Amino acid sequence: MKKWLHSLKTNTPQEGFELAIKLSQMGVEYTQPDEKIRKKLRPKYSTNADSLIAASHVIATNFQTVAAANNYWK
Amino acid sequence: MKKWLHSLKTNTPQEGFELAIKLSQMGVEYTQPDEKIRKKLRPKYSTNADSLIAASHVIATNFQTVAAANNYWK
Amino acid sequence: MKKWLHSLKTNTPQEGFELAIKLSQMGVEYTQPDEKIRKKLRPKYSTNADSLIAASHVIATNFQTVAAANNYWK
Amino acid sequence: MKKWLHSLKTNTPQEGFELAIKLSQMGVEYTQPDEKIRKKLRPKYSTNADSLIAASHVIATNFQTVAAANNYWK
Amino acid sequence: MKKWLHSLKTNTPQEGFELAIKLSQMGVEYTQPDEKIRKKLRPKYSTNADSLIAASHVIATNFQTVAAANNYWK
Amino acid sequence: MKKWLHSLKTNTPQEGFELAIKLSQMGVEYTQPDEKIRKKLRPKYSTNADSLIAASHVIATNFQTVAAANNYWK
Repeated sequence: MKKWLHSLKTNTPQEGFELAIKLSQMGVEYTQPDEKIRKKLRPKYSTNADSLIAASHVIATNFQTVAAANNYWK
Repeated sequence: MKKWLHSLKTNTPQEGFELAIKLSQMGVEYTQPDEKIRKKLRPKYSTNADSLIAASHVIATNFQTVAAANNYWK
Repeated sequence: MKKWLHSLKTNTPQEGFELAIKLSQMGVEYTQPDEKIRKKLRPKYSTNADSLIAASHVIATNFQTVAAANNYWK
Repeated sequence: MKKWLHSLKTNTPQEGFELAIKLSQMGVEYTQPDEKIRKKLRPKYSTNADSLIAASHVIATNFQTVAAANNYWK
Repeated sequence: MKKWLHSLKTNTPQEGFELAIKLSQMGVEYTQPDEKIRKKLRPKYSTNADSLIAASHVIATNFQTVAAANNYWK
Repeated sequence: MKKWLHSLKTNTPQEGFELAIKLSQMGVEYTQPDEKIRKKLRPKYSTNADSLIAASHVIATNFQTVAAANNYWK
């Protein structure tokens, strides 16, 4: 896998949230590296409320890590 | 995405809880950016107890982050 | 929404646990503000073991926050 | 509800784990206070692997809190 | 229940991970003490990917506790 | 089980994320040691969006541990 994560530091909380999204996506990508398959799954989970809530849960978990790494941008 | 998250700091615990809700919604919104689709999903998950419990779990996870960022409003 | 959360501080661990329950319920309430709908859902989830376990998980997550806010009532 | 939680302090890690179980059960009990209903649900979830794994997850979450409260019994 | 957990301290991270597995199993065992029933459930959950992922989630949660107790074996 | 986890320390955040993936896989492997069975399950969960999201959640949980162990690579 090529270099995709250089630091957990971000300039703003919003960039930190977007990094948490990236981490969540990469968790999926490492588990299913085939982009074609991932794209095929998208229409289903992205129109299913429970899948979207589960995705938001993963993002929230990663955001805890990113926020701690940035000392909560205090 | 336009600027929507300026700080994790809030004046009160209740505002912090409401920020946690916002973070949880944004996790969904980044994953499914189409507002029409999200609105169509709402009647279903908002009348399903398990979906509501799952949504509350995401909020709880984000509230941990917001509360830590505010040193628990001590 | 009217004021419902004034502080994460409680006098005892048990009151802290009960605040965690309140936070968990409010996560549901913000997501589904209609009390009539929530009441209609109650007979179903409250007699379903998996829903009860999921509810207890949300409470556990919020209790982590409340306990930290109270320095674990040490 | 009568007094059931006096402290998060325990003498040993095992007692702490058992307190985490108690907290997990109380999360269920507050949500479904009727003991008869809870007893009726038991045969089903206690013979379902996914329910047991979910219950163990709640216990693990509460054990994090109890362990932190006891400074990990260091 | 006899004594099974003496300390959260382990010599190595791997032993800590294995203790996290033990804690996860004990969460199940306290909930379903009958070994015969647990053994009967094993063929089903151990060949179901979602059950295995859920089991790994519980282990990850307990590993957070064990790792913190060992100051991450720094 | 042979030695597979020597340290939670990694040189970079990305290596830390990859260690979190390893920990998540090992949680599965300890629960289902038979490699043939695990391989048979792969086509199903790796093409199921909810399973992939759940896998990413486990990785996120383990990444919290690894990131803390590395002081967030600050």
